Amino acid sequence: MVLIVVTGMPGAGSSTVIEEALNLKLKGREESIVFKSVNYGDVMYETALENGLVANRDGVRTLSGEKQREIQMRACKNISKMSENMNLIVDTHCTIKMPLGYLPGLPEPVLRELKPDQFVLIEATAEEIAARRQKDKTRERDAEAESSIEEHQFMNRAMSMAYACLTGAAVKIIENHDGALDKAAEAFFVLMNRLSESEPKP
Amino acid sequence: MVLIVVTGMPGAGSSTVIEEALNLKLKGREESIVFKSVNYGDVMYETALENGLVANRDGVRTLSGEKQREIQMRACKNISKMSENMNLIVDTHCTIKMPLGYLPGLPEPVLRELKPDQFVLIEATAEEIAARRQKDKTRERDAEAESSIEEHQFMNRAMSMAYACLTGAAVKIIENHDGALDKAAEAFFVLMNRLSESEPKP
Amino acid sequence: MVLIVVTGMPGAGSSTVIEEALNLKLKGREESIVFKSVNYGDVMYETALENGLVANRDGVRTLSGEKQREIQMRACKNISKMSENMNLIVDTHCTIKMPLGYLPGLPEPVLRELKPDQFVLIEATAEEIAARRQKDKTRERDAEAESSIEEHQFMNRAMSMAYACLTGAAVKIIENHDGALDKAAEAFFVLMNRLSESEPKP
Repeated sequence: MVLIVVTGMPGAGSSTVIEEALNLKLKGREESIVFKSVNYGDVMYETALENGLVANRDGVRTLSGEKQREIQMRACKNISKMSENMNLIVDTHCTIKMPLGYLPGLPEPVLRELKPDQFVLIEATAEEIAARRQKDKTRERDAEAESSIEEHQFMNRAMSMAYACLTGAAVKIIENHDGALDKAAEAFFVLMNRLSESEPKP
Repeated sequence: MVLIVVTGMPGAGSSTVIEEALNLKLKGREESIVFKSVNYGDVMYETALENGLVANRDGVRTLSGEKQREIQMRACKNISKMSENMNLIVDTHCTIKMPLGYLPGLPEPVLRELKPDQFVLIEATAEEIAARRQKDKTRERDAEAESSIEEHQFMNRAMSMAYACLTGAAVKIIENHDGALDKAAEAFFVLMNRLSESEPKP
Repeated sequence: MVLIVVTGMPGAGSSTVIEEALNLKLKGREESIVFKSVNYGDVMYETALENGLVANRDGVRTLSGEKQREIQMRACKNISKMSENMNLIVDTHCTIKMPLGYLPGLPEPVLRELKPDQFVLIEATAEEIAARRQKDKTRERDAEAESSIEEHQFMNRAMSMAYACLTGAAVKIIENHDGALDKAAEAFFVLMNRLSESEPKP
């Protein structure tokens, strides 16, 4: 089966692009292609909950680094098991920006376990992402926020090449600009089709 | 023996730089340094042909992803065997831009088998590469093409760092600007000399 | 114990930032956090000296590539042993710019042995670094030098993502601008505290 890892920083809109793409119907066909989407963070939370490590969602962040890595690996094994029987989209982050800096979303042991067939980077301009993150909806541009988003996008692209090198999977950049969600969803839809068609039938 | 991996995107001129450098004679000496150059794509095609998988060159592209990886690995083993008895230059791509995105030209298993001593990125400006790719030779600049070439060059540089990390080999950027092929060839020639001199004699 | 790898290109001021941060006292506490700092290059030199391979510091550079890698690995094992009993800061380079190009400061075998918990990139603008490197203190800007520094900084950031992927450690960028050393030292100090606090007590 096919496993696609989709990443986007907060405000890039990766979850929305996935949802829209899954809603698209193949022209002239009634059923859509069969892909299930899971959010890596959700699976981590559920895994921590099942193991009695947290009482609520915020609990995950307060776990020690060691415990977080343990949960990350267990969640990874759960996702890996799911992907044996279905085409899977894993919605996650390429790098996570933390007080300690840029943390890899898919460190080597996670990559070795997941064996992704494809990476997708959902991107937008720094200006668009900064505006989407602003809650007060003021229209003033924030140069510092934009420069920090550009740096993060740089690190994500560089990290995606390390992921590609270790897995052999390709990295597709899909731009999700304001007012063009349908174009981004279409591009992702075409990619899903291409990947599921190239898959040998069981 | 020394194995140099030279990469350049279409239009960067990697094959021309290699050819010119191999033609250069060491000043004051009649023989040139002994390096053989092979094109990774050619070796893949020959390997596929020998195994009866394709009837012509275009056939390689129509093979399934799995078959392509198999051919890529067999070609890699052939190149690796060649490099035991001679100094070798492997002319290939750092990443290949495909409908599925940026595909690593040298994924981890290929790197582990080839064990390159040196990487070379042949580069030019996006404007130069775009112009070299234009077949109709109109002199109009194509901003979209140039921006896409810049993105590709970014991904190549980032990928080369992943290659360097896994192999310990250095990455040399050689600029191959319009009208300065001799300078690029000279830089590559100097590099070949330096590498073959540092090599312990058998 | 905690092992932090701090990298900066010549002129970025990594050693000065480390020194300043180690001098800072925790507000309201008299003792500073206990971290020892070692310079990777110094340990390599001492290792080469002990093994009778060099007579003085410059000797290291004249060793064959093979011998250098041997010394690099032995030095790495010495550092790794030190880090068992103390919190360690390793002052080194992300990539080293050589005639052969960008050489990884921490190739895979070194990373596997050191198992760093955290990477830090000390950065400044290309203009600042170029000016700091000028010995004659002329105030003229050197565009070529600045462009070469920017390229080097790009490669360092990309390489740091490969390091992060292989180790799972985060990469923190700390800016060390002219006249703001105290700010850089403070940021590094906060990081040391955070890492030593998250460490399980023996």
